[in-house]
Amino acid sequence: MKLSNIQSPSAVKALSEQELKKLAGEIREEIIRTVSENGGHLASNLGAVELTIALHRVFDCPVDKIVFDVGHQCYPHKLLTGRGQAFSTLRQLDGVCGFPRREESEYDAFNTGHASTAISAALGMARARDMRGEKHCVVAVVGDGALTGGMCYEALNDAGNLKTPFMLVLNDNGMSISRNVGALSRQLTRLRISRGWLGVKKNLAEALRKVPGVGENLHDAFQKTKNSIRNAFIRDKFFTALGFQYFGPIDGHDIAGLEKVFRSLKNVDHPVVIHVVTKKGCGFDQAEEAPEKYHGVAPFYIETGRSRSESGPSVGTVGGNYITELAESRKDICVVTAAMTESTGFGAFHKRFPDRLFDVGIAEEHAVTLAAGMAAGGMRPIVAIYETFLQRAFDQITVDVCLQNLPVCFLMDRAGIGGEDGATHHGLLGVSMLRSIPNMTVFAPRCEDELKAMIRWALTHNGPCAIRYPRSLPPMDAPHHDFRPGEWEELCKGKDAAILASSTILAECLEAAKLLSKEGIEARVINASSVCPLDEKCIQHLVKKNIPVCTVEEHYLSGGFGSAVAEYCAKNHLTAPAVMIGIPGAFVPHGSRKLLLQRYGLDAEGIARQVKKAVKQ
Amino acid sequence: MKLSNIQSPSAVKALSEQELKKLAGEIREEIIRTVSENGGHLASNLGAVELTIALHRVFDCPVDKIVFDVGHQCYPHKLLTGRGQAFSTLRQLDGVCGFPRREESEYDAFNTGHASTAISAALGMARARDMRGEKHCVVAVVGDGALTGGMCYEALNDAGNLKTPFMLVLNDNGMSISRNVGALSRQLTRLRISRGWLGVKKNLAEALRKVPGVGENLHDAFQKTKNSIRNAFIRDKFFTALGFQYFGPIDGHDIAGLEKVFRSLKNVDHPVVIHVVTKKGCGFDQAEEAPEKYHGVAPFYIETGRSRSESGPSVGTVGGNYITELAESRKDICVVTAAMTESTGFGAFHKRFPDRLFDVGIAEEHAVTLAAGMAAGGMRPIVAIYETFLQRAFDQITVDVCLQNLPVCFLMDRAGIGGEDGATHHGLLGVSMLRSIPNMTVFAPRCEDELKAMIRWALTHNGPCAIRYPRSLPPMDAPHHDFRPGEWEELCKGKDAAILASSTILAECLEAAKLLSKEGIEARVINASSVCPLDEKCIQHLVKKNIPVCTVEEHYLSGGFGSAVAEYCAKNHLTAPAVMIGIPGAFVPHGSRKLLLQRYGLDAEGIARQVKKAVKQ
Repeated sequence: MKLSNIQSPSAVKALSEQELKKLAGEIREEIIRTVSENGGHLASNLGAVELTIALHRVFDCPVDKIVFDVGHQCYPHKLLTGRGQAFSTLRQLDGVCGFPRREESEYDAFNTGHASTAISAALGMARARDMRGEKHCVVAVVGDGALTGGMCYEALNDAGNLKTPFMLVLNDNGMSISRNVGALSRQLTRLRISRGWLGVKKNLAEALRKVPGVGENLHDAFQKTKNSIRNAFIRDKFFTALGFQYFGPIDGHDIAGLEKVFRSLKNVDHPVVIHVVTKKGCGFDQAEEAPEKYHGVAPFYIETGRSRSESGPSVGTVGGNYITELAESRKDICVVTAAMTESTGFGAFHKRFPDRLFDVGIAEEHAVTLAAGMAAGGMRPIVAIYETFLQRAFDQITVDVCLQNLPVCFLMDRAGIGGEDGATHHGLLGVSMLRSIPNMTVFAPRCEDELKAMIRWALTHNGPCAIRYPRSLPPMDAPHHDFRPGEWEELCKGKDAAILASSTILAECLEAAKLLSKEGIEARVINASSVCPLDEKCIQHLVKKNIPVCTVEEHYLSGGFGSAVAEYCAKNHLTAPAVMIGIPGAFVPHGSRKLLLQRYGLDAEGIARQVKKAVKQ
Repeated sequence: MKLSNIQSPSAVKALSEQELKKLAGEIREEIIRTVSENGGHLASNLGAVELTIALHRVFDCPVDKIVFDVGHQCYPHKLLTGRGQAFSTLRQLDGVCGFPRREESEYDAFNTGHASTAISAALGMARARDMRGEKHCVVAVVGDGALTGGMCYEALNDAGNLKTPFMLVLNDNGMSISRNVGALSRQLTRLRISRGWLGVKKNLAEALRKVPGVGENLHDAFQKTKNSIRNAFIRDKFFTALGFQYFGPIDGHDIAGLEKVFRSLKNVDHPVVIHVVTKKGCGFDQAEEAPEKYHGVAPFYIETGRSRSESGPSVGTVGGNYITELAESRKDICVVTAAMTESTGFGAFHKRFPDRLFDVGIAEEHAVTLAAGMAAGGMRPIVAIYETFLQRAFDQITVDVCLQNLPVCFLMDRAGIGGEDGATHHGLLGVSMLRSIPNMTVFAPRCEDELKAMIRWALTHNGPCAIRYPRSLPPMDAPHHDFRPGEWEELCKGKDAAILASSTILAECLEAAKLLSKEGIEARVINASSVCPLDEKCIQHLVKKNIPVCTVEEHYLSGGFGSAVAEYCAKNHLTAPAVMIGIPGAFVPHGSRKLLLQRYGLDAEGIARQVKKAVKQ
């Protein structure tokens, strides 16, 4: 049976041990090949191959429900559930999504993308099942990294009450995206290290014998451990305190062993947690050696591991390095990250000032209130979190930071269309989320210099400040400019229309202006990098001069920047914007940013077309 | 020393045991008297009197920092820190706030109001202290109810790494606002019940002796317990797994005992948790007997406990009872609440359908994703949470509910100006938070009938829906109306202006229309109860007829309903609203809703004045 012939998980159930081994190899090859071409999540998926095979051999999907937390480990699942043929379209526009999506397949039980939701969602499904008198199994597969998220704890605490079957598979690879942090993780690690990951002893016989309906016949699946005291350390503490029965740790690359445990426990009438130890990157040497580097990757050459297209340092890295410089003399600067110190560009800061950077793990709510506490204690904290994940902390930003007007600077990385990661990863709600909160300021730089100026300002401002920027900013042929809040910058002149925009989409606007000028329309392009507050004088000036105003944003139209301009104009009895260009009210799928911009009329041609239409009206 | 003479906590340090007892009595009297007149949080504050006295005797505030989680237990603290004289103004406009506020006193280390933030904030302060080379103490006081919030776990997991002093006082009264839920709580309860709250034995000697610098001299403060095995059950599990050293449980009404423990542990160089058992309502018979009823109270007669002003059932109760009726035939209806089943009006539902209501504790994030899982599993979940607390789940609403377009119905109670609870409790961001999220619908009823119609619609709609309403809706003299999404209702006719508004503020608008008619201005009042989607036809009709549109909302102006109308008008080249009335960009303090409406020009007179001005322009 070849991978390409597997149309549904039932085909996997019939395979021999030998064939399963071969299948695992083919899955790995397919994942490595596709990710090397399309980019995607590599190391975590390679670590979950045997685990996924074992799950699909024991459980009957789609009747049984498997919820993959975050989804960084869903590729083997996609390959086994009818998406093998289309897998080469992974992460491409209209192709297979890199995360579980109910719209894509009935085998995807729940959409994920943000961490720590699977236990809550699976518990909801288990309760729905019980209320509807159904009998299927519900399994949540959660990485140890996601366990730092408070939602997991809320859900565990609630699930501990359940009197019906509920299985949590803890996929423990000792990593979140960066090295895992926190006290609980330290304990998991201690346990693993004491044995070596592959030498994990399977000492479940004792525990399983106590479960009704599970007997002696499992003896052979487990060996005696020399470290049962350490095993007990985990088993009897955290999960048990929350009402779960704990089993493990077991080898996550031993399909037969996993199967036996899953089969024995699938129908027990209370919540169980099975602690599975896997190796991130398993089967691909480079990824095993540097799992962090191979967590989420751009297309690369398999032989060398080198990226197929060289991209410069991220905007975040430029900001992070600049803050590292400033921190030499500014002893009050400290940094809070949430499991993404490297990805947000604060690796250098961490190296230089290990005592002033705090990686709290996947725990954005805590990150923000921690920073608020630091600010109340006289520091100047920088919180560096991807925009989409900062949504987690909307309430903490409002109540803990803005209400007290505390000087916390939010660096919101990956703002705008994120591209191939898709709907859960775009940063398209940042402006509407923040601009309504009193005391908040929101900026979006057009270049590295402007970012630095914003950071300097934020570090002297007695209140909160949020700076949104994408992974990369296109180079811009414009002279140096002194950023000031509430003051916009004219990038090019024009009497027929004014295009207001900020950050990465400005490049498309400048291009649009060139296209328009060919048609005899002179469009002024304005860098509206101070998103909140607006440059009120500039708007008044444009309206008085009777220049039609066009707003452009890589953000949902509803409640965004254009909306803020319209609101200001209405309040002040000024002519409203002639056109507001942005993303209409529907979630944006995965795909290349270029194609997505085209789809939403946010590329230069689209912008030019809409501005022209507005001018002619 | 009388309470009224205490200007700062230093005065408390000099008192004898006898005087402290008298002081505790006076504090209780003052709290009961003031709350009986002004309303406020009673039972939780009465339970924390001795605890607060002991804290202020051991710690030196404001240099040392005490962060009170939620703030439901901060009245004794306020009375001991210079706010005794002003305490009669509790919760009144410009008076003493019912929650800790840094703007009010340097003794309030951090503003709280939403649960589960104190450990994060205090950890931030402890880290700021360490980075700045300071030496003061930082204490977080957290109720057992707040511990169900995931943020606490995120913070504990992070704090477990600390190598410097950090004290968590777990004020365990066995309640959150409703009876506490979850597995952890069950264990705390088991422990308490086994001993009776007042008979709690103090068996800390053993543990304290192991702490460097703490010796045998504490022996006398503790008695041997018969249940050390149960004690170990808590001590060795949850907190220890997270890196804290656990001490307790100890009697939270024994000032001398508390002092000794605090003094011994205040300088140990790692995180400690002190489990203090208190009685909610302590010292006031009615409150001891029904602590839930006396958690947050309206002004009442001390003798009888009867409320000073009779208010009818809340809007939430009307909705909850209606859903209980519907659930008789609709087996797919289930309800999720977050520690506020009674306050959100679902007491009757819980009684009738105990297996279809899930109170997850203070865990709004989990509540929302749990509901999403239930909806994915074929149920029709209702999530009933105060609007301000639902801010906690902005990301879950976006990613887990709206992205999958799941049929979850959010009942957002206490929308609008909440009154005396103040800045952390008003519901003034609901529209801006939700209207940008694709797939979301947002409604706000003007009366109970309309609420019921909205609920009926939500239960047939294949997607998410949020219904915002206040505690009470004023009676309205208007005929029955069939609610339909995207269709507004004309409440009174008028050719000179149109006032668009929804929910509770409509009553002020109708009153404003009467005032205007006396001045010869005929204002049409429109019930814009379908906030999202808007009634586009209605807006077009008004604009075409050249009737100036005035939007009125009990919400921040920025990004709110008026902004949505302005945005729609701009997009469609229609004349913008003539005036947008709402709350400008500053946090709204505590005070009676009536006075606050006046302050923001949202009372009938204010609305009439602004509409008149717009019409004359």
